[in-house]
Amino acid sequence: CSKMGLWEGALTSCGVFLLQMGWGDLGAFGEPSKETPNLDQMAAEGMLFLDFYTANPLCSPSRAALLTGRLPVRNGFYTTNGHARNAYTPQDIVGGIPDSELLLPELLKKAGYTNKIIGKWHLGHRPQFHPLRHGFHQWFGSPNCHFGPYDNRERPNIPVYRDWEMVGRYYEDFKIDLKTGEANLTQLYLQEALDFISKQQASQQPFFLYWAIDATHAPVYASKQFLGTSQRGLYGDAVREIDDSVGRILKHLQQLGISENTFVFFTSDNGAALISAPRQGGSNGPFLCGKQTTFEGGMREPAIAWWPGHIPAGGVSHQLGSVMDLFSTSLSLAGLQPPSDRQIDGIDLLPVILQGKLIDRPIFYYRGNELMAVRAGLYKAHYWTWSNSWEEHSKGIDFCPGQSVAGVTTHTQEEHTYLPLLFHLGRDPGEKFPLRFASEEYQRAVEHISGLVQQHRASLVPGQPQLNVCDQAVMNWSPPGCEKLGKCLKPPESDPKKCSWPH
Amino acid sequence: CSKMGLWEGALTSCGVFLLQMGWGDLGAFGEPSKETPNLDQMAAEGMLFLDFYTANPLCSPSRAALLTGRLPVRNGFYTTNGHARNAYTPQDIVGGIPDSELLLPELLKKAGYTNKIIGKWHLGHRPQFHPLRHGFHQWFGSPNCHFGPYDNRERPNIPVYRDWEMVGRYYEDFKIDLKTGEANLTQLYLQEALDFISKQQASQQPFFLYWAIDATHAPVYASKQFLGTSQRGLYGDAVREIDDSVGRILKHLQQLGISENTFVFFTSDNGAALISAPRQGGSNGPFLCGKQTTFEGGMREPAIAWWPGHIPAGGVSHQLGSVMDLFSTSLSLAGLQPPSDRQIDGIDLLPVILQGKLIDRPIFYYRGNELMAVRAGLYKAHYWTWSNSWEEHSKGIDFCPGQSVAGVTTHTQEEHTYLPLLFHLGRDPGEKFPLRFASEEYQRAVEHISGLVQQHRASLVPGQPQLNVCDQAVMNWSPPGCEKLGKCLKPPESDPKKCSWPH
Repeated sequence: CSKMGLWEGALTSCGVFLLQMGWGDLGAFGEPSKETPNLDQMAAEGMLFLDFYTANPLCSPSRAALLTGRLPVRNGFYTTNGHARNAYTPQDIVGGIPDSELLLPELLKKAGYTNKIIGKWHLGHRPQFHPLRHGFHQWFGSPNCHFGPYDNRERPNIPVYRDWEMVGRYYEDFKIDLKTGEANLTQLYLQEALDFISKQQASQQPFFLYWAIDATHAPVYASKQFLGTSQRGLYGDAVREIDDSVGRILKHLQQLGISENTFVFFTSDNGAALISAPRQGGSNGPFLCGKQTTFEGGMREPAIAWWPGHIPAGGVSHQLGSVMDLFSTSLSLAGLQPPSDRQIDGIDLLPVILQGKLIDRPIFYYRGNELMAVRAGLYKAHYWTWSNSWEEHSKGIDFCPGQSVAGVTTHTQEEHTYLPLLFHLGRDPGEKFPLRFASEEYQRAVEHISGLVQQHRASLVPGQPQLNVCDQAVMNWSPPGCEKLGKCLKPPESDPKKCSWPH
Repeated sequence: CSKMGLWEGALTSCGVFLLQMGWGDLGAFGEPSKETPNLDQMAAEGMLFLDFYTANPLCSPSRAALLTGRLPVRNGFYTTNGHARNAYTPQDIVGGIPDSELLLPELLKKAGYTNKIIGKWHLGHRPQFHPLRHGFHQWFGSPNCHFGPYDNRERPNIPVYRDWEMVGRYYEDFKIDLKTGEANLTQLYLQEALDFISKQQASQQPFFLYWAIDATHAPVYASKQFLGTSQRGLYGDAVREIDDSVGRILKHLQQLGISENTFVFFTSDNGAALISAPRQGGSNGPFLCGKQTTFEGGMREPAIAWWPGHIPAGGVSHQLGSVMDLFSTSLSLAGLQPPSDRQIDGIDLLPVILQGKLIDRPIFYYRGNELMAVRAGLYKAHYWTWSNSWEEHSKGIDFCPGQSVAGVTTHTQEEHTYLPLLFHLGRDPGEKFPLRFASEEYQRAVEHISGLVQQHRASLVPGQPQLNVCDQAVMNWSPPGCEKLGKCLKPPESDPKKCSWPH
């Protein structure tokens, strides 16, 4: 989004990319195959954020946090079914984004923006959670992950929507070949983005485009022309296609003459899923573990801000940033104030981006409603450590393959509330060498962070947890529009249960 | 070195930097603090090598390989005291660079180059191994690592030479404060380099400058003005000072108007020493383990070629390169042929650097005289795996802190000769997921690599091992020039023994 009024009469617009990619997946972030020339170019023309975080090590809560500017524990995207469990929105989830939450597109809508989501919504798939009921004008994509194929008896295939209605299902009308990894979805999503931008430019309407594609999420896919083009295998093919797509979108903005009025941000919703590596999982560079964990590999994200003519080229920022800041920053660009009736966790990054300022703020690492860790400055204190259970680990479910730090990547939930594990992320970005408890440095840093935690806890009003109840009956049996396509399926009887979240 | 004759009458020169730094220590290679603006700029103006290797995971053998263009097993820089042991040149080592080896400066000397080494020589410290007896015209630096301080009774402090004679000793005349990490040595070495370049420019003499500094080798040090300036602690301070120094040298070349006649290469002699992390050890990015090992972290190095006006800016190469290539490439730049009476392992990288070619060649990973692993294309086959012994590991000596890959980072020497462990370094740069033995891909790749190994072994004539015998009597008791300084010490009686190489 761009600041309205700054360029009177000019088009004002904004875009966000969001993908399951790791910090270390971009050439600009040190991926050894260096196969992301367009993203690297975007960074060279814009600002690279090296200390940018998602709000959760899992997709749905991160996306809810981005769009609400609030931590999942506030906006309801968490579970209390178990202690410190990650939860998301599989298709049997009953909950979704509460009406009481104010989403970025809802606010931008009032300021005259046309809002479009392309790709995975993931904030609930039941009618009341539909993105067009939460501020978006247009949608092309799916409510859930592209898991499958399913048999449409035990479990329906995931629908793909155009606006209010489904237009088909994954694996049926939108093919994904699990064997070869071929699917042309990113091309569809790209074309959709280019067309939307063209139309908005033609009609001189400001827009908010949320390009939330998922090719790098298992099952990873790429279009035929990208298959086999990467040194990194199928995952790399998908990254290359995304890189190419981002390049095309930026070029399109430039060719339409609206790049200087378009603020674009690239980031990811969680760290690379190392459990899917090497074929379907990416890289978190030098960081510890990956998706599902509150170590750096789970939550530190690649991030690039691009806005030619405004952001000085080649900028690098160590601002502690969060996907939630995209909420506040976008509002600021649109000349809007964030809602004052609720706690907003995002901050306005414009002073950082435009004036190179550094804003002192902590990063909170949650798993479910448990505050696992806090970063302030270069220090990170772990109050709880857990990768996953021994039981899961013994089945080969490993969120930290090849990595094992004694007392840190624990397979039992370890509480450190009274003596947090402390790391200095400058000297030790890989969280391998906890500081000595007795050191002065430890005591000073922990005292500071403890104060922040107290402050945070004192003002915390947890939202109603949305990710506790699952029911086979709510799955995507008969999404709106299914009649026209003859794709309605009969749901089973309702049988709500506690969802099972093993980690 | 620059190709003589190409620019008739012009100054022709060449420079090499060599430091104990890891692949992941530079911003351009993804170090999260991104504190190497000058090296990053060097890369942006030159060519980045992402798949560049040293010839050994330890300093002395790497340096011997660089200067001879030959693997340590050929030039004698290895031990046979134990199986697959790393060895170097501590001050009780009896051996050193054999006279029969032809060093790069010896060859360049004949072509009219003035050759200078600044920093750590490490190819033997006894009189017959002196760098000025092996082609260098000038030297400022030390024969061994800057370990210490010693008591000058059990063990003398390491001397610092200017040309033929010592001018003082570390910790005495050249201070290193182990507590604060303060030492101004890099500044001395920088000034020495700038002065040398100025003089060569003034006298219109081509030169070869081998800037082999060691601030990032434990005990890590930095000058006062750099202490505390890095997010990364003392190690980062040292990196910043080196980065700054490289920037000054490049700028100096530009200001003297000879940058277009000066080929400059930056690389490292081994991976970051993770055993010294976090205070004194760097980062190998996403790679496995570090110095002392034949995993990628031990031998893949940061590498940048710089030659304004010749190397296209912003180039990136996936050429499998080696420090030994600097021997052949430098000769080529000087219009010389490599010696034809011996096997040279280095290749001329000029077609790669100037024309973007890719030359098919393997990389051999040795530990002692054992071929531990071979890389060909994106495949790497391990014939032996070993990090270090259980005995050492239980004492806390860990070359892979926080990393543990079952069956790969083994603490017993594991032979895989008949069924090598195979990794695809594109999909799996971290060597975490060995390919399945039964797969067609495995069989094809191993067959290819086996052929290369047979070929290599068939032509291999191992040199006389130089790193087998140690003797307290050969230490730096009375280096030449000690009389003038009153710094001669009395050696103990000669008592040659087998050196002990625990890993």
